[in-house]
Amino acid sequence: MRYDGQCFWLLDQTLLPHTVRWNVCEDVATLVGMIQRLQVRGAPLIGLSAVVLLALLAERGKALTSLRESAEVLRASRPTAVNLRNNLETLLANDAVTGEAPTADCLIARAEHLIAEDKALCARLSEHGCALLPEGARVLTHCNTGGLATAGSGTALGLILAAHRCGRLKKVWVDETRPLLQGARLTAWELGEAKVPYTLISDSMAAWVMQCGEVDAVVVGADRIAVNGDFANKVGTYGLAICARYHNIPFYVVAPYTTIDLSCPNGAAIPIEERDAGEVRGVMGREGAYVWAPESAPVYNPAFDVTPANLVTRWVLDSGHFDQSELRNCIKLEMN
Amino acid sequence: MRYDGQCFWLLDQTLLPHTVRWNVCEDVATLVGMIQRLQVRGAPLIGLSAVVLLALLAERGKALTSLRESAEVLRASRPTAVNLRNNLETLLANDAVTGEAPTADCLIARAEHLIAEDKALCARLSEHGCALLPEGARVLTHCNTGGLATAGSGTALGLILAAHRCGRLKKVWVDETRPLLQGARLTAWELGEAKVPYTLISDSMAAWVMQCGEVDAVVVGADRIAVNGDFANKVGTYGLAICARYHNIPFYVVAPYTTIDLSCPNGAAIPIEERDAGEVRGVMGREGAYVWAPESAPVYNPAFDVTPANLVTRWVLDSGHFDQSELRNCIKLEMN
Repeated sequence: MRYDGQCFWLLDQTLLPHTVRWNVCEDVATLVGMIQRLQVRGAPLIGLSAVVLLALLAERGKALTSLRESAEVLRASRPTAVNLRNNLETLLANDAVTGEAPTADCLIARAEHLIAEDKALCARLSEHGCALLPEGARVLTHCNTGGLATAGSGTALGLILAAHRCGRLKKVWVDETRPLLQGARLTAWELGEAKVPYTLISDSMAAWVMQCGEVDAVVVGADRIAVNGDFANKVGTYGLAICARYHNIPFYVVAPYTTIDLSCPNGAAIPIEERDAGEVRGVMGREGAYVWAPESAPVYNPAFDVTPANLVTRWVLDSGHFDQSELRNCIKLEMN
Repeated sequence: MRYDGQCFWLLDQTLLPHTVRWNVCEDVATLVGMIQRLQVRGAPLIGLSAVVLLALLAERGKALTSLRESAEVLRASRPTAVNLRNNLETLLANDAVTGEAPTADCLIARAEHLIAEDKALCARLSEHGCALLPEGARVLTHCNTGGLATAGSGTALGLILAAHRCGRLKKVWVDETRPLLQGARLTAWELGEAKVPYTLISDSMAAWVMQCGEVDAVVVGADRIAVNGDFANKVGTYGLAICARYHNIPFYVVAPYTTIDLSCPNGAAIPIEERDAGEVRGVMGREGAYVWAPESAPVYNPAFDVTPANLVTRWVLDSGHFDQSELRNCIKLEMN
């Protein structure tokens, strides 16, 4: 995410790691397309991209009612992650004291604040989470939750990078994360760039790596955390949580408070986005789609799954790390 | 697998479902290459291909000592599956009564017998296993265990096809089975050809499909079953077994007696083949390799994993279906 004083630029994450291409984003339809194609992805980054674009459009004269309509369109573009909704509400809210509608300058200031805050939240998550890992930790992670998914250093991957910097980390097991391969394409690339030792595996190998005694902790991000601690994350997270529990391996969820949905009582209330069948039938290559399944194979392609709170060892939030009862108390305080 | 009176032909399974190509196999080095590239795959089929080739070479005048050396080379080509070893021992054994070395005619007869037996074993597995499924069963399977993996109708997939024929089956969930995608390429194709309703998923979605209450049984094949019931199968099987147990879903292993290794006390004694890193870094497309991970990404690529006996609900063998204590008794009888 980059702003050069004239244009708002977003890195096309579908082309990484082989091609680094930045695309200009000037309007809501363009951003919605980018989000749906996962060119822009990661719950925190999606939320921040949306507020930056709306603030820029406000500066260029777009009226608040029109911005609020656009916010609805943006919200619908990825229904599972809640940071987008939370950020848009924060951006467009009337002044809490005076009830006045926000000016364009106010929207710019709020967007800048949300970006600065995300960076600070990432730093605090890393700090809190790092202390949970043993010396010489071998950590397994899923999907991508690093600098590409946030404005800062990332959530789960930010924690991993921080653990590497302070010498606690031995290695990272990276789930490739089918169908869209965010682990193989993005996490492997980020870890390589940061010179962190890692090993890439297919998702179905994670249980066996645990059985071999090679995993000290599983660390994942979240797209939405319900009030009871159930959370949605990239599909595959739930199976990992079950396998971690079976092997008595701690399972940590790392997310800023913007990921908590105070209006969502539990996992059953989280909508699960289903995506195009083509993603599972094959893969998008540089020269177009490569389909390995029968062309008309029926497919189920949920982008997320929900992990029940009882499989989580601790939630690492920007305010500290919590077990389930502590998390619920913390959320209750927030709601009052 | 086809013999036209002159040449021994093997279907190239890496090109399915889009291209049907048969390759001639005239010597041991060619077959070893085909097995290592997974052009010929499936524990029973690998074992049968090897005995057919050696019997043909015997007919063409190759001496028994030379055939026994070739058998060692073939055995080493896929160390995990045991049918290959078992079949080669049966083929090349001296006469149990007279102690005489087998003639070429005898090898041909033994190879023909093993093929006919595999077909009969598949039929019996299906019959025994079918009775375990409830009416309207929704079954999840992993990898490919059908007509492409055996001389007959298959093991786990043979059972599924039999359940379809007798009207007990509602649908099949097909794990794509990364990294080599035998589920997406082969199982989906076989089910489509047989007009069996199926849905393809990425491996990491299986736990979520179970959580959604959409799976009545998990049915898999095996590459080697130890005396205590632990078994090796395509990597990903172990994680599925853990998830099935978590959801109280029955987990069935379907294999002929040729898959049992009487010399193997438990899963820890089963060697796990590791394969090339390139398989996990990307995929082999029709136009060559498509690599999505960083080109030099470190990879762990075990082709198999081991599932402990205590996660198996029942073993479906050609002689019936058994729980763990029944299986052990059955194997003890076999050993005496």
